[in-house]
Amino acid sequence: MSDPIALITNIRSDYEASYLSALASAMPAEKVILFRQMSEEQRAHVQIAIVANPDPADVAALPRLVWVQSLWAGVEQLVTRLPAGGPPIVRMLDPEMSRTMAEAVLAWTYYLQRDMPAYVRQQRQGLWHQHAYRKPSSLTVGILGLGSLGKAAAARLGDAGFKVAGWSRSAKRLPGIQTFSNGDGLVALLRVSDIVVCLVPLTSETRGLLHTGLLGIMKPGASLINFARGPIVVTDDLLAALDSGHLSHAVLDVFDEEPLAPDSRLWQHPHVSVLPHISAPTDFETTAAVIAADIGAYRANGALPCSVDLALGY
Amino acid sequence: MSDPIALITNIRSDYEASYLSALASAMPAEKVILFRQMSEEQRAHVQIAIVANPDPADVAALPRLVWVQSLWAGVEQLVTRLPAGGPPIVRMLDPEMSRTMAEAVLAWTYYLQRDMPAYVRQQRQGLWHQHAYRKPSSLTVGILGLGSLGKAAAARLGDAGFKVAGWSRSAKRLPGIQTFSNGDGLVALLRVSDIVVCLVPLTSETRGLLHTGLLGIMKPGASLINFARGPIVVTDDLLAALDSGHLSHAVLDVFDEEPLAPDSRLWQHPHVSVLPHISAPTDFETTAAVIAADIGAYRANGALPCSVDLALGY
Repeated sequence: MSDPIALITNIRSDYEASYLSALASAMPAEKVILFRQMSEEQRAHVQIAIVANPDPADVAALPRLVWVQSLWAGVEQLVTRLPAGGPPIVRMLDPEMSRTMAEAVLAWTYYLQRDMPAYVRQQRQGLWHQHAYRKPSSLTVGILGLGSLGKAAAARLGDAGFKVAGWSRSAKRLPGIQTFSNGDGLVALLRVSDIVVCLVPLTSETRGLLHTGLLGIMKPGASLINFARGPIVVTDDLLAALDSGHLSHAVLDVFDEEPLAPDSRLWQHPHVSVLPHISAPTDFETTAAVIAADIGAYRANGALPCSVDLALGY
Repeated sequence: MSDPIALITNIRSDYEASYLSALASAMPAEKVILFRQMSEEQRAHVQIAIVANPDPADVAALPRLVWVQSLWAGVEQLVTRLPAGGPPIVRMLDPEMSRTMAEAVLAWTYYLQRDMPAYVRQQRQGLWHQHAYRKPSSLTVGILGLGSLGKAAAARLGDAGFKVAGWSRSAKRLPGIQTFSNGDGLVALLRVSDIVVCLVPLTSETRGLLHTGLLGIMKPGASLINFARGPIVVTDDLLAALDSGHLSHAVLDVFDEEPLAPDSRLWQHPHVSVLPHISAPTDFETTAAVIAADIGAYRANGALPCSVDLALGY
C-alpha cells in the first residue's frame, strides 16, 4: 500500500472536491491525491488513476499505471482519446446510478403518458381540455440498450404496468420483456414502441443511430427519450420528424454539445423538453464505495475489475 | 328481475353513452334505461338508480328506490342535495380508479421531485442549470386521506422509495407508513412533509381545510398536490403562500369551479400547474363491472353495498 492513487479530472471544482472527499472517506487506508498536486516521485508509483474528463497527457505521465477507473458510466472520450495499448479502462457501474436512471426513465415516461407537455402548453393558453387517458398496459416502451441501466429501467417500467420491449447489440433474454437484437430487431422494436428510450453507449456503431430512416419507422405519434448521449440521435433529423408531426415529443437530457448552444432550435421547440443532463446524476458516496470495493479486491489478490472492450467501445 | 335500473346523469352526452353501453355489457340480464326515456310505469318499479350529477327531482320521482349508486367516488353533491331520509347512497370505489389515482400521485410526485416545472421554465429562458438531485428516501410525502385512494397512493410512493406519512380523520395503522389523525396529527404531518397530497373527500369538515394557518405550518419550500376537490384548499390563501415563496409549487387538478374560470390567477401563476381534472379519469368498463357485482349480490340475496355515512359525508 505504498503507491498513491491519482485523481485526474477536468470538471467543476466543487465536483472534484466532492469526489476527493468521498474517495478519502471510502478508502481511509489509501492515499488519493489530485494528479496536479503529485510529486514526480509519487507519479512514478501510481498504479490506479481515477478519472473524469482527464487530459490524456496526464494519464500518459503515469508509467506504472495498471488501470484507469472512470468516474462516469460513459467512456466514449476515454476510449477514443487515450492512446491504444494503454492500461485497461473500467467504467463506473454504480447500482445507485442504475436506480436513479430507472427512476428518471419512469418519471419522464409518466410525463409523456400523462400528457404533461400538452397540459403545460394548454395552461399558458388558458385552455381546459382533457386528453384521453392511456393505461400503461396499452403502451409499449422500447428501450435501446440492455446494459445495467437499460435492464434497471425495463424492470421499473414493467413493475409500473407498461409493456416493455428492449433492444441490444447482442441477443439477450430478460424476464417479462420482449427482446430484440441486431439491425432487423431494431426496426421491429421501433415499429411497435409508443415511447423509445435511448440508453445505449456512444460508440462508432451507435453514433448517428437514430437518423431520418429509423425515425421514420417509428409509430406515428410516438415519442423519444434520450438519456444516453447526444450524438446517438441526429438532431436535424429529429427536428424534421417533430416538425412534420410524425413524432409527438422528444425529451432530451443529452446533446451534441453541452451546455446546449444558445442558438439551438431545440430550446424553443414546442415538442421538445430540454433537460440539462440531470437524468442520473453521480452520487459521490456510492461511486466512491464502488471504487473502494474494486481497489480493495485488487489490493487483496491483484484482481482487476471488468474493463471496457476497446473494439466495442464500452 | 322485473324492475329496470335508472341511469340519471347530467354529464357530457358521450360520457353518458359510454356508461350506458358499459353497464349494458356488464349486466346483460338487467335493463338499464335512461331516466328521461322511462315510462311512468317503469319509474314506479325502479329499485336502483345509477347517477352522476343527477337532478334531485329525478331521484325523488322514483318511489320504490332502494339505493342510489354514484358513478363517482366524490359524493359531496349527492349528500348535500338529495333530501335527507332518502335511500342510501353508494360511492363508486373502483380498484382501477385507485390504481390510476396512485399512478397520478406517483407521476406528479416525480414531476416535483425531479424539478420538472423549473426545467420547463428554464427551457423557455434558454437557461442550462442543474438542480441538486433529491433521493426519494430524503423526501417525505404526506397524504391527506387514507381511504382506498390514499392507501393505494401511499403504497405506490413507498414502493418508489419515498418516505410516506398519512393523515386520516380516525386513527389508522398502515404498514411502512407513519400515520396521524385528528387536528394535532394534521399539524404534525404538515410540519414534516416535503410534498403534501390532498385525497380527502369534500365534507363540511374538509371544506377550507387548507387555509393560511395550516399552509403556514408546512415546511418552507414544500409543495402541494390537490387531486381531491377544489374547495378543500382556500385558493387565495394558497396563492399568498406561493407568492411569498413559503411554498414552492402547487399541482392542482380540481378547482372551486370547473372548468377553471378564464380570469383565475391560477392559470398564469409560474408556480402552479393547472390540470383539467384528469388525475384519475373514470374507466367505464371497470366502473360498470363494480356496479354489476353489487347488483348481482343484491339480486341474489338482497345484500346492499356499503353506503355513505351522511353525518360524515363520505
